[in-house]
Amino acid sequence: MKDFRLDERLERDSELVTVLGLCQLRLMKDSRWPWLLLVPQRQAVTEIFQLTPLDQTLLTFESNTVAAALKRVTDARKINVGALGNMVSQLHVHIVARFEGDPNWPGPIWGFGTAEPYRDDAKQKFLKTLVEAL
Amino acid sequence: MKDFRLDERLERDSELVTVLGLCQLRLMKDSRWPWLLLVPQRQAVTEIFQLTPLDQTLLTFESNTVAAALKRVTDARKINVGALGNMVSQLHVHIVARFEGDPNWPGPIWGFGTAEPYRDDAKQKFLKTLVEAL
Repeated sequence: MKDFRLDERLERDSELVTVLGLCQLRLMKDSRWPWLLLVPQRQAVTEIFQLTPLDQTLLTFESNTVAAALKRVTDARKINVGALGNMVSQLHVHIVARFEGDPNWPGPIWGFGTAEPYRDDAKQKFLKTLVEAL
Repeated sequence: MKDFRLDERLERDSELVTVLGLCQLRLMKDSRWPWLLLVPQRQAVTEIFQLTPLDQTLLTFESNTVAAALKRVTDARKINVGALGNMVSQLHVHIVARFEGDPNWPGPIWGFGTAEPYRDDAKQKFLKTLVEAL
């Protein structure tokens, strides 16, 4: 991991929750949706297929573990998983809990409206239940 | 695969390109972006984490193979990969080639504007180069 350096925009827009085997698990600073990021700690990788086969498998495992935990703790209608990277090229995977009637449902979350910060107590409560569920 | 039945909306909005080990590879009937779908041939699965571990690994392999081929044949700026499923719950993974200045760049493709059909010759040419690159 020693060569890994987090993209500045990801650093600014999200906060570290924990470090898994391959990825940083981060929480987006936007309370409109329970919205997590996985950022593989590999430098200069922009596409999943550029990871080694082992890292691809690790990412799959971590992504599915996090998605299943997020579904469990939020009871979401649907989990959205996406690796876009049109604005921030450093590889990162969005894992988002969606609910009928949430902002822009059933459309995508990306590029919609303006982030709304968490209240500190709501954030701490969510992160505690999430980390316990991992 | 005998119990698998493709969702009617996916059937209508996309056409079969080929069948891989786990998934149907399909082309969306929308020429605005080179836009593929992978549909695991498993009934009643809506989230990637509901697949067996083997199927999760197969999906990762097929998704990355298709994404790398799509990047190669289109020379796209970025490949977008997403499993949303807010409208069609049957598990399906979008794999989309994105270019600076394409419709809604750098925003997401989902829910944007109206599909534009392919000209038959353009579609056949694209599918031929894609299948050769797989």
